[in-house]
Amino acid sequence: MKLIIANKTHSSWSLRPWLVLKQFGIPFEEVLIPFGPTMDDPGWKRAVADYTPARKVPSLVDGAIAVWDSLAIIEYIAETHPELPIWPRDKTARALARSISAEMHSGFTALRGACPMNLAWVHPARDRGEAVAADIARITEIWRDARQRFGAGGDFLFGEFSAADAIFAPVATRFTTYSIALDPVSAAYVEAVQGTAGFQAWREAALAEPWVVAVDELDEPVLTDFRPNLSRSRAQT
Amino acid sequence: MKLIIANKTHSSWSLRPWLVLKQFGIPFEEVLIPFGPTMDDPGWKRAVADYTPARKVPSLVDGAIAVWDSLAIIEYIAETHPELPIWPRDKTARALARSISAEMHSGFTALRGACPMNLAWVHPARDRGEAVAADIARITEIWRDARQRFGAGGDFLFGEFSAADAIFAPVATRFTTYSIALDPVSAAYVEAVQGTAGFQAWREAALAEPWVVAVDELDEPVLTDFRPNLSRSRAQT
Repeated sequence: MKLIIANKTHSSWSLRPWLVLKQFGIPFEEVLIPFGPTMDDPGWKRAVADYTPARKVPSLVDGAIAVWDSLAIIEYIAETHPELPIWPRDKTARALARSISAEMHSGFTALRGACPMNLAWVHPARDRGEAVAADIARITEIWRDARQRFGAGGDFLFGEFSAADAIFAPVATRFTTYSIALDPVSAAYVEAVQGTAGFQAWREAALAEPWVVAVDELDEPVLTDFRPNLSRSRAQT
Repeated sequence: MKLIIANKTHSSWSLRPWLVLKQFGIPFEEVLIPFGPTMDDPGWKRAVADYTPARKVPSLVDGAIAVWDSLAIIEYIAETHPELPIWPRDKTARALARSISAEMHSGFTALRGACPMNLAWVHPARDRGEAVAADIARITEIWRDARQRFGAGGDFLFGEFSAADAIFAPVATRFTTYSIALDPVSAAYVEAVQGTAGFQAWREAALAEPWVVAVDELDEPVLTDFRPNLSRSRAQT
């Protein structure tokens, strides 16, 4: 089973199925195809097409079966590993987990546009507008609600780590990267997600990457530079 | 089991789970809460909140369980009705069905923005820009591929009607509403989806609706007016 992904520093959609596979101990081969100079780079599309006709990352290739899109891959992994609680076992919890995962999957475009995933730096806090604030308010409302109703058995949305946590992992990193102030429940959850062995391994690999993706860089001050050996201006040229 | 939806003329997300329930003969009670004057209307949100704490349509309320988002609702219906082939029975076909459904769920924003679902009128063909053309090219590529690989047993993407057809139904209506020229395979598929008993019933109810949602009206010529008794200008004031 091969998982085709892009840059770990930037590819939020790649992170999700990768984290599910790692956290549940499912063996797979990782194929990382770094983004080209633009998001629509034909050379990059061709390199991905060698693995999957959909020309998209993430893609999971399991023998003759190709699955793409983070959510479809996660459903495929869950279905082929019924012995693992990838979605919560409780029916009501599972319905909520799928609802909030789908809401994340298709929504929060203001936050995603204004605060691209970027594990290399921390930016100082600043006002990022009403639409972003509304997205943050809704995401943290979702988190607090899940934690309160189903979180008793652990540090994650439904207690133990589940697919829903993988779906929200990229947004958890954005809250750190952009120094977004959070309520105590949400702050603890962001820490729990980023404290998983899977995420720690992903982040370590991200910080060793030699690439910078210009479209995911904001032209604003940087508070912490996790890759001091890789200057942004140098790498972008 | 209650399905909370909004205007049938306009609510593309509502159409999807409604069509799955109808086409598979699953009994449910429909609760239609017409949109307010704006998409964020607080009165509308309050009316929806009487049924579901997520304040979103579509929502499915099954006893104490509330599920929202078209894709999560469809997964819930599939899971609670394992006797029905809501997703294709074949594993490879099902993986493809979930991949293209997820791609539709989170993508094609250019087409969705430029061509809102609106069952009341047909607009003449015109160039709607490169991004829309790229979305149309990708959607019809997906359709031709699924039809060719798995469509032999019927008129739908995977032969018999499945969840994937419900997910793509709103975009099929857009191709009709905006007179978008299609290859023969895609044109036949658009006709098949809109020829289902479920869609016909939805459309008939849509055309009887007394509401017009200004944000889903394009200020351009109308070729066919399916609701001649309801002038757009009158209804919008």
